Amino acid sequence: MNHPSKIVAFQGAHGAYSEQACREKLPGYESRPYKTFEDVFIAVEQGDAELGMLPVENSMAGVVSDSYDLLAVHNLHIIGEHYQRVRHCLMAHRGASIDQVKTVYSHPQALAQCHTFLKKQGWTRMAVYDTAGAAASLQEEKREGEAAIASALAAELYDLDILAEEIQDSANNTTRFLVIAKDGIIPMPEVGCKTSLLFEVRHIPAALYKCLGGFATNGINLTRLESRPVAGRDWSYHFYLDFQGRLDQPNAQQALEELEFYTHSMKVLGCYPESLRPQGQTQA
Amino acid sequence: MNHPSKIVAFQGAHGAYSEQACREKLPGYESRPYKTFEDVFIAVEQGDAELGMLPVENSMAGVVSDSYDLLAVHNLHIIGEHYQRVRHCLMAHRGASIDQVKTVYSHPQALAQCHTFLKKQGWTRMAVYDTAGAAASLQEEKREGEAAIASALAAELYDLDILAEEIQDSANNTTRFLVIAKDGIIPMPEVGCKTSLLFEVRHIPAALYKCLGGFATNGINLTRLESRPVAGRDWSYHFYLDFQGRLDQPNAQQALEELEFYTHSMKVLGCYPESLRPQGQTQA
Repeated sequence: MNHPSKIVAFQGAHGAYSEQACREKLPGYESRPYKTFEDVFIAVEQGDAELGMLPVENSMAGVVSDSYDLLAVHNLHIIGEHYQRVRHCLMAHRGASIDQVKTVYSHPQALAQCHTFLKKQGWTRMAVYDTAGAAASLQEEKREGEAAIASALAAELYDLDILAEEIQDSANNTTRFLVIAKDGIIPMPEVGCKTSLLFEVRHIPAALYKCLGGFATNGINLTRLESRPVAGRDWSYHFYLDFQGRLDQPNAQQALEELEFYTHSMKVLGCYPESLRPQGQTQA
Repeated sequence: MNHPSKIVAFQGAHGAYSEQACREKLPGYESRPYKTFEDVFIAVEQGDAELGMLPVENSMAGVVSDSYDLLAVHNLHIIGEHYQRVRHCLMAHRGASIDQVKTVYSHPQALAQCHTFLKKQGWTRMAVYDTAGAAASLQEEKREGEAAIASALAAELYDLDILAEEIQDSANNTTRFLVIAKDGIIPMPEVGCKTSLLFEVRHIPAALYKCLGGFATNGINLTRLESRPVAGRDWSYHFYLDFQGRLDQPNAQQALEELEFYTHSMKVLGCYPESLRPQGQTQA
């Protein structure tokens, strides 16, 4: 086993968009593939990897449910965030041309995100588990007439020709990633920060409204509020909340004190430097 | 073209869980399959079907993102809701036994929901577009050693043997469906109701908190609050909100008036009789 420092775990095969995120956010790290999101958590917990790169939200497709569920049950800390552009490429074995393509393989979500491009072609669309896996299988088997939709990194790693670039419907297709680690960090004082929380509201009237009151009256800006079913307790909900600010600010501490009063359970998932969103701003 | 009355459109192939929902909620209706969620909306808009059956949330997997996005852009009305239990079955061609199975086909989410059952077997798992399609292809091709995970209805329709029942991890795996129609309804006065809204908050401090204030101070119980990226405007958010009550109640009207003041846009998606949740209760 290598020393875990300078290793970042990601879910998927080599060439996955998560690996692109690892390379862009953590260029000094070796990125190591794991089969499931849970394997990524376990690798970090057991010290096989120092960090994990976890997709939590895509600008087109919404939240990555599994990631939030795992944050709830594991005790890892968020130490950073990263916005990764998703640029889908069409690729096939070396020397292939786009006119020969008859079948295209990719993850159902990637196929859906390239709907406009694919509609013009009469190709058969085949769903597979992941985009990078689709690229990998093309390299192995070199079948005529078959193509994959995956990242440019996948084309590079699996020695494939890119037949078309940026074929996704939205030019702004972006995924938000969280960097997770065994221990939390205290960001440098001069850095703009975000804090992520997980809580379950008490069963009292207007509970969620009351939970948000401390943030509203202390001038704290929420950037995300997400409800998720509690695993194993159907139709019970957790809330994930991100706010702009640091845990050690007096107004944040007042807001959290109020929040705790109205919740069954409240857990700070991390306080970390804020990354720039690729565009726009929203206040919740 | 048949007369659209007494036809309910659903997404998927015959035997999909959505078709089971159609049969249970609307036993007098003919259920008709459509390829995409958007096709379901178009069928109802163009009068090819009187109603549509739309999955919006699963107790295990969270929201069905596409459904919410389509509710935002189309002008259909919610006229009812339905909770459908998801009971996954393992099936293969007639006469097959479970010992012969080598490969199992299903939607990635169904495979994930049967994780505990599948872990004990050494089978290859193959992702396909939908559960019922996996069952249909078994009937057509009758390949040895291949099985599918789908609904009991799919086994019945495609003349397959059920090799194992209720193989999903959670006994309470349930999907919430909405019934959509061209025109809204005004539910009978004596019926308990839910109202669904879609809104976009103004860019002012504590906007979401202020949006919820009218509900809190008028004693209106929220049953769901969901944020979704606005299609085509990345990292901008819609909120979907369900409350218990009717549009014509004075306290609901006061809450909506206050809500409108703090929003860019606000749309009532429907007011409809409330269905019983299979278990528990949550207050947002």
